[in-house]
Amino acid sequence: MSQSVQTAQAAQETYSQVGGDLYAEVQTFYAWQMRRVDSLDIEGFADTFTEDGEVVHSGGQRQSGREEMVAGMRASLPRYRDIAVRHWFGHPLIEVDAVDPDTLRVSYYTLVTLTDREGKVSFQPTFTVEDVLVRRGGRLLTRSRVIHRDTPVEPAS
Amino acid sequence: MSQSVQTAQAAQETYSQVGGDLYAEVQTFYAWQMRRVDSLDIEGFADTFTEDGEVVHSGGQRQSGREEMVAGMRASLPRYRDIAVRHWFGHPLIEVDAVDPDTLRVSYYTLVTLTDREGKVSFQPTFTVEDVLVRRGGRLLTRSRVIHRDTPVEPAS
Amino acid sequence: MSQSVQTAQAAQETYSQVGGDLYAEVQTFYAWQMRRVDSLDIEGFADTFTEDGEVVHSGGQRQSGREEMVAGMRASLPRYRDIAVRHWFGHPLIEVDAVDPDTLRVSYYTLVTLTDREGKVSFQPTFTVEDVLVRRGGRLLTRSRVIHRDTPVEPAS
Repeated sequence: MSQSVQTAQAAQETYSQVGGDLYAEVQTFYAWQMRRVDSLDIEGFADTFTEDGEVVHSGGQRQSGREEMVAGMRASLPRYRDIAVRHWFGHPLIEVDAVDPDTLRVSYYTLVTLTDREGKVSFQPTFTVEDVLVRRGGRLLTRSRVIHRDTPVEPAS
Repeated sequence: MSQSVQTAQAAQETYSQVGGDLYAEVQTFYAWQMRRVDSLDIEGFADTFTEDGEVVHSGGQRQSGREEMVAGMRASLPRYRDIAVRHWFGHPLIEVDAVDPDTLRVSYYTLVTLTDREGKVSFQPTFTVEDVLVRRGGRLLTRSRVIHRDTPVEPAS
Repeated sequence: MSQSVQTAQAAQETYSQVGGDLYAEVQTFYAWQMRRVDSLDIEGFADTFTEDGEVVHSGGQRQSGREEMVAGMRASLPRYRDIAVRHWFGHPLIEVDAVDPDTLRVSYYTLVTLTDREGKVSFQPTFTVEDVLVRRGGRLLTRSRVIHRDTPVEPAS
């Protein structure tokens, strides 16, 4: 899957310019959303998605709707019992839908740190994420998220 | 202390929208401030705080005023003798004071890398920081900083 | 060389304010450029430089023009055969040329992650980069890049 993303990215010939307000709006939305997930506020995190929001994890599992997301996150909670998790984002590319200005396609890098009680930091693999965000009542929500684990690529040429 | 922050964050129900200019202003301020600290420019770093600026470290130590900050940093210099330190920030949330538009509350994640002479990178624990910034003569300064070491949380629900 | 940068940075007394649109434009340019390099799209990466673009690596090697860049990157490809590389940027400082508003000086931190097939993440040394960007036909391109490996500094005072 990562392979296909990277091929798609490699094939793309240009990128959208983004105004400052939109850039700040998107970055602030993610800052908020990641505080929810990093504080294990499952309900609050689910609320940053549309009711019919969907997440496709790098392993292929798909969660559809807030209820499935909440169940999935609750099941994975034991993994975070003794660590503080932080999601770091890098290099967002934002594209406004040509027809609907309230629909955005955003891709970004993620690095996830796990800090244990002694302060030792370890890392999950890096990922590249592709989101569709929608603006509803002036607020952004995630409608779909596809998470790709970063894997080695064969050079494009 | 981290616990209480995260509880506070979990309890908060929404976040402030931020315009592009303000977002860039704050990010640029931090880029400048962190170059000061990472180049061990103690006086220059202290100058990015108000005269009565205050820092509360994650261990509870409090430094009040530029003079105490300078003394504290000078005392910790030996720690950085053979390493290059870099502070990385993530996910800023910016809130303008309801009464005074020149007062901002900002919170963000930090990751600190230590690179030794051989190029080996190690990491300090991750932190979440809460700042109060003030704009004086068109320039931002830090008036207060509270640094929380990230610790495991019990899920909110 | 890092020493001289940090001395220069330490000596600088202030920084340029940056509007939100310019901030977003620069960040988006780098998001695009780094996707090119991280997907090993050598030609695409070279195309984000001016024809006479120049890169000075931290070891002192200089690549002048797209052709030399492409050759240099091609030679280093074997290094990335079994890993996914990701370049993370931090703390950009952007300065518009006083005479030509289409010329920008940008400096930023970089952290490079290498993720292997098992998902294990390792790190290259951190670097500080100084770019000159030019806007041509409404698009940014890198005209020159000087990469400094971060090394320990002696305190400024």
